[in-house]
Amino acid sequence: MAKDLSMREENYSKWYNDIVQKAGLAENSAVRGCMVIKPYGYAIWEKMQAALDKMFKDTGHSNAYFPIFIPKSFFSKEAAHVEGFAKECAVVTHYRLKNAPDGSGVVVDEDAKLDEELIIRPTSETIIWDTYRGWVQSYRDLPILINQWANVVRWEMRTRMFLRTAEFLWQEGHTAHATEKEAMEEAERMLGVYSDFAQSFMAIPVLKGTKSANERFAGAIETFCIEALMQDGKALQAGTSHFLGQNFAKAFDVKFTSSEGKLEYVWATSWGVSTRLIGALIMAHSDNHGLVLPPKLAPIQVVIVPIYKNDEQRQLVVAKANAIKDILVKSNVSVKVDDRDAYKPGWKFNEYEVKGVPLRIAIGQRDVENGTLELARRDTLTKGVYQEDAIAETVAKLLDEIQENLYKKALDFREAHTTKADTWQEFNDLLDNKGGFILAHWDGTAETEEKIKEETKATIRCIPLENNLETGVCIYTGKPSSQRVVFARAY
Amino acid sequence: MAKDLSMREENYSKWYNDIVQKAGLAENSAVRGCMVIKPYGYAIWEKMQAALDKMFKDTGHSNAYFPIFIPKSFFSKEAAHVEGFAKECAVVTHYRLKNAPDGSGVVVDEDAKLDEELIIRPTSETIIWDTYRGWVQSYRDLPILINQWANVVRWEMRTRMFLRTAEFLWQEGHTAHATEKEAMEEAERMLGVYSDFAQSFMAIPVLKGTKSANERFAGAIETFCIEALMQDGKALQAGTSHFLGQNFAKAFDVKFTSSEGKLEYVWATSWGVSTRLIGALIMAHSDNHGLVLPPKLAPIQVVIVPIYKNDEQRQLVVAKANAIKDILVKSNVSVKVDDRDAYKPGWKFNEYEVKGVPLRIAIGQRDVENGTLELARRDTLTKGVYQEDAIAETVAKLLDEIQENLYKKALDFREAHTTKADTWQEFNDLLDNKGGFILAHWDGTAETEEKIKEETKATIRCIPLENNLETGVCIYTGKPSSQRVVFARAY
Repeated sequence: MAKDLSMREENYSKWYNDIVQKAGLAENSAVRGCMVIKPYGYAIWEKMQAALDKMFKDTGHSNAYFPIFIPKSFFSKEAAHVEGFAKECAVVTHYRLKNAPDGSGVVVDEDAKLDEELIIRPTSETIIWDTYRGWVQSYRDLPILINQWANVVRWEMRTRMFLRTAEFLWQEGHTAHATEKEAMEEAERMLGVYSDFAQSFMAIPVLKGTKSANERFAGAIETFCIEALMQDGKALQAGTSHFLGQNFAKAFDVKFTSSEGKLEYVWATSWGVSTRLIGALIMAHSDNHGLVLPPKLAPIQVVIVPIYKNDEQRQLVVAKANAIKDILVKSNVSVKVDDRDAYKPGWKFNEYEVKGVPLRIAIGQRDVENGTLELARRDTLTKGVYQEDAIAETVAKLLDEIQENLYKKALDFREAHTTKADTWQEFNDLLDNKGGFILAHWDGTAETEEKIKEETKATIRCIPLENNLETGVCIYTGKPSSQRVVFARAY
Repeated sequence: MAKDLSMREENYSKWYNDIVQKAGLAENSAVRGCMVIKPYGYAIWEKMQAALDKMFKDTGHSNAYFPIFIPKSFFSKEAAHVEGFAKECAVVTHYRLKNAPDGSGVVVDEDAKLDEELIIRPTSETIIWDTYRGWVQSYRDLPILINQWANVVRWEMRTRMFLRTAEFLWQEGHTAHATEKEAMEEAERMLGVYSDFAQSFMAIPVLKGTKSANERFAGAIETFCIEALMQDGKALQAGTSHFLGQNFAKAFDVKFTSSEGKLEYVWATSWGVSTRLIGALIMAHSDNHGLVLPPKLAPIQVVIVPIYKNDEQRQLVVAKANAIKDILVKSNVSVKVDDRDAYKPGWKFNEYEVKGVPLRIAIGQRDVENGTLELARRDTLTKGVYQEDAIAETVAKLLDEIQENLYKKALDFREAHTTKADTWQEFNDLLDNKGGFILAHWDGTAETEEKIKEETKATIRCIPLENNLETGVCIYTGKPSSQRVVFARAY
């Protein structure tokens, strides 16, 4: 167990915060609810961005950038959207400061009041659809397939690093289509991209499904989501993709002439994932020794620690470490040699364990003499001695194994924590004693969902996309139901 | 000349705006002073980011992310900084909206007033140095070499797309060092990175120099800059690197224990370039046919236009176009095949000319039969017929030639527009009739600089780093001077 790290089993919440801090991922800032993403945490985000950005481009999307400010009146244009987003937000009212008359600093210049307040974007549908109006005349101008990497602000009252912060980083895709079918296919395609990313890169299995009306995005006709399970048995929504119908086109008057010459409203989707994914990554894999990272998202995949007793040994061993690094870098592995003299090997071992580096290579004089290397896996905490001359192949194989193993462990955990409940009693027992995803019948009404949430804090995470139809009775009301839905307490 | 494009010689300002619009780079948004960066414009920014980000990482820097909000009081902590930055800025005063009592929409909730107003960052020295205080105890914690890619807001009254907008995108490096020497070296190193980037990627020659006290960054001891010359003879500051001394460390109480065990203030630098560079790129190379892009920053380096008269030809020619594309993509050239049937070749030729695509390949049936291709260069507007079987080599060679030619043209222009002035009369004649960089003696005082600016709108762009010392007399006051400085009217 790493020094000063809380035990996951004892205080999950503190364990999470400890990892964020000790692994150097982020810290709270002087601004309430806003975090500083430190270089190591940001490097994980860069890896995520690179993989996602390639997937977006491979599916035909381009990046663009829209203003951070949204005129207040824009929010009132889409009835559902205003309820969901215009409330807890940062409002810019003035555009100038001036010296305080008493010399005490600067104060707001009341002469510089904006005619209309500007809202810092909590999401960009409104400003983007206001722009799309000028881009679309004919069906030839469609589809528009655009993504934006940006910061957004939602004035959350209870914040938690990565999981819920006032400002966060994300990407938001906003697409415009000539037909309902095409827009719906796009929303489903991007859900597929998110699901592939979560599973292939983050090594986290996810459920794909739709949200109930209560949990739907404000302004959407249908919200698709991927839901992941954390090690404390709570669910985490890892990404959403919305079919927006013609709601925003109607609100912002975006029409096009169809190939049949008819004037029609444009169909829309939007979809996003955020720095919250880093929170999911931490909670899905880490242990009492610290962060555990899947190799595909690890800023450092292999750390090499030279071990020596004197200057002569140091020279020999560090030279070997750098030679090994060169070999690995050639096969596109990201490698760090830590030859700092001020820290002992044991201290370094602990450091990179806490930081979740997937593979550690230790090299001592005897290894150099024998042509061997000691490799330690972060996921299993096991060590092995390997031949130096096949190191590139060995590392490639082990990194693949670690990636697969993390996914399998997470999948096993999810399967062990996915349970059917047929009665209200069972449902409550499961929530309190086991957690995880609970498959239960629900009568399909918003009222029942709301009552279940009030009484148990559990929500419907999703209605799985490929759900088996099965008749049953609602666990809460006893009314008839045609399928089970997925309940859980969630982040 | 491209359709609907103003002539550069007749109305430079309109010509610039036309290119921004017709090439699909950006447009004004519904928010005063904020632009929408459209996909083609953003793709240029992505190319710039990729190149710069690699240069920053190769010089040891990591990326991180700091809050967009800065508490108002932070600005008052550094005396010079508050004068320069705290004035024209976006001020967040409230964190909630509510439904208007009369049902007319949403209004600011006066109950949700912030205790202390938050400023949208115009630059991040203050919030970052407030954070660094917690990161630095000993000399072992130094240097800190961090860069941030972010949006910033400065409430400019007169805005112009890319060149001056209320919100813009940039990167800001913020480094912390144990010694003055190390910080000064860092500031100079990053100026070198900017200069290399401008010359190698943007194909724009730049002058490296220091700013006069009047033009220095608010809070800096020394501001280094690169200055470029636009085709209308006006200068454009393309990047700055600041040696901040211990000013911010003192303002935010950031101290460290030196290797000698003494408690000392940390030394700082900051440096940045922004989306303004896209404005420079447009103005440095473009012509009356539209945008001209250096190949290293062109989102599309080669466009292939198939030419055919019937379906049979179309099939043959498009297949060949795609085969050529595959060959070029393998040598890392970014290629687009435009096989849209709805547009004629001539229309497409014009389209890619306006968009500044460096090379255009046209393929007709006869080309396929002869094993030839027609290549047209955007920079010289010349065409040539080349053998298809050596196309990868030909394209690589031509792209290199275009990159070099653009640089050479820009350098020739700058040299032809760099002139010495020895009298006030000469100085004014040059400004009004020729423009460009004017090398003139100045008495070294802020008052004289200010008066010259008031009377002529020319400012001191920089004091060149490797300046020849030369005795002379100030063109304005006649007082003695030891070196010429660079004057120009500027963006």
